[in-house]
Amino acid sequence: MRRINAVLSGLGNIGSRFVGVLDRKRDVLQQKYGVDVRLVAAADVSGGAINPDGLDLAQIASLKGQGIAGIGQAGLGILEILQSVNADIFFEATPVNLQTGEPGLSAIRAALKRGMHVVTPNKGPLALAYGELRALARENGVQLRHSGAVFGGLPTVNIGQRDLAGSTILKIEAQANLANSYILWNMGKGMAYKDAVRAAQEQGCCAPDETLDVEGWDAIIKLVILANSVLEIDARIDDVKREGITHLTPEAVAAVKAEGKVLKYVASAVRRDDGSYELSVGPRALEPNHLLVPLGELQMGVAYTSDLYGIIMATIREEEPTPSASSLMRDMLSIYAP
Amino acid sequence: MRRINAVLSGLGNIGSRFVGVLDRKRDVLQQKYGVDVRLVAAADVSGGAINPDGLDLAQIASLKGQGIAGIGQAGLGILEILQSVNADIFFEATPVNLQTGEPGLSAIRAALKRGMHVVTPNKGPLALAYGELRALARENGVQLRHSGAVFGGLPTVNIGQRDLAGSTILKIEAQANLANSYILWNMGKGMAYKDAVRAAQEQGCCAPDETLDVEGWDAIIKLVILANSVLEIDARIDDVKREGITHLTPEAVAAVKAEGKVLKYVASAVRRDDGSYELSVGPRALEPNHLLVPLGELQMGVAYTSDLYGIIMATIREEEPTPSASSLMRDMLSIYAP
Repeated sequence: MRRINAVLSGLGNIGSRFVGVLDRKRDVLQQKYGVDVRLVAAADVSGGAINPDGLDLAQIASLKGQGIAGIGQAGLGILEILQSVNADIFFEATPVNLQTGEPGLSAIRAALKRGMHVVTPNKGPLALAYGELRALARENGVQLRHSGAVFGGLPTVNIGQRDLAGSTILKIEAQANLANSYILWNMGKGMAYKDAVRAAQEQGCCAPDETLDVEGWDAIIKLVILANSVLEIDARIDDVKREGITHLTPEAVAAVKAEGKVLKYVASAVRRDDGSYELSVGPRALEPNHLLVPLGELQMGVAYTSDLYGIIMATIREEEPTPSASSLMRDMLSIYAP
Repeated sequence: MRRINAVLSGLGNIGSRFVGVLDRKRDVLQQKYGVDVRLVAAADVSGGAINPDGLDLAQIASLKGQGIAGIGQAGLGILEILQSVNADIFFEATPVNLQTGEPGLSAIRAALKRGMHVVTPNKGPLALAYGELRALARENGVQLRHSGAVFGGLPTVNIGQRDLAGSTILKIEAQANLANSYILWNMGKGMAYKDAVRAAQEQGCCAPDETLDVEGWDAIIKLVILANSVLEIDARIDDVKREGITHLTPEAVAAVKAEGKVLKYVASAVRRDDGSYELSVGPRALEPNHLLVPLGELQMGVAYTSDLYGIIMATIREEEPTPSASSLMRDMLSIYAP
């Protein structure tokens, strides 16, 4: 049995569910994978808690926004924890911040420098500083894993990195953003843009502030992470041609339908003859036989076209965040029980 | 640079294409994965050839059924080669034999006992002796990989083993057999059974003797391998409830359509409350919103339902055998550059 000391930052939707998964799967982790995972420290906005023997997972999972300070120390920050605690792996699950990547970015840097593996579904630090973080991981002989950052529980990155091994990827096409997918689907049924946004918010697939979704930023950062991790190019946010859906009218959507096409929000990377990739996100009028057309309005999906493996496509129906949260466990197991 | 000495048995559709892929991807293998693969021996029905410095890959790939004896030694068999050659990995790609698993089974046993990793897309030995071969691999500290044996280039096994890590798989449903899929699709358009079989043979997705496909054996052996490798149960061919398509009439197919359902040939594993699985293959009348319905008549696909990762589905359009052949390289890289 291998003991793994873990630190977690962020106890929101993903972080607290992940702790619950670790708790429920304790026996499987020990018996099937031979790992005994102890959460030796955890932090959220309220503070932090440390226990070298392992915090009580069921207790942490049930905090539900009450703040870990109640069972730990108010104001104890993740950077302080990472400096003082000896741990093998750091799980970073704070909210996405696209301007600075913080607080995730500094914490990931600190953990890598301390020689910890890092697993994160946090798109901010990855989209802003992928190259730097990858280099830092290599320098310190540890791994940086983020399978949950690109389409939640869908193994988008894993398929691209491992299952297409040795191939040249010619094209990636993805339904990458559920909010935009759901909005376009409703507009296709005649709903006005603003009503469709509200419907998406009521459904739960769109944030109360829809800006990041409808202006394309969410799809862009996923594509940037995918381009860095799978295509292995140094892509940045500015390299992606961005088109949102805020300008779409029901008339324009109806016109696409009248042409016999299907309007989908698509993130794509297309290889040019010189080996570089054209990256773009936006609404696209697809032919009815296009690979992405059969995808449901609440499915995420990616299609890889490569020189060796034909067209491989993977999709997920993720109705709540457990698959995304479980991706942290998957990534941990890919490090310790590959 | 790590040098890998490889032995290959079988130079048919898969084997010779695989040699061609190794040849074309030599630079990528060296530069990106740090491996220098030398084919130190190869055999087919005509004989074998040995070269400790590595055979000429382009020459082997272009034999096209002319027999390797022409450039090697007539009658030199794979068992003799495996005993005399020092190699790290054995690729077994002879034709499927469901009665005995031979000649693949004996060769795989011999290679594992000699301490070689084994990669094979050959369904015969795996379906007949999975448990024995896995145990033999473990005893000898080597790996047995077979991602090409279950739906060709589709990473069916890899997704189930790695990307669903820690989860309990509740259901697997798959469009596992292209011939049956294509036949049912044509019968759905009004074609009689015999004509539909002929059409599938002309298309190239059905063998000249269609028995293994239309009676369900091909789907069964894929399901058995999947059950052993992903569900980790000791499933055997007899454990699968089998229904073929030979009894189907155009009237029966039309009746399914009239009910608003879609007829697909489905392989499935469904978890019972006691943790065991019900395994079956057969034609199924699916509701129009079923996951497998959008699959094209020449696509293979698998849908995994698990307790943690929602419903994850993967599909492939494999128009010729290069993806299956490339899966041998993928498996090799998962051993040497995980």
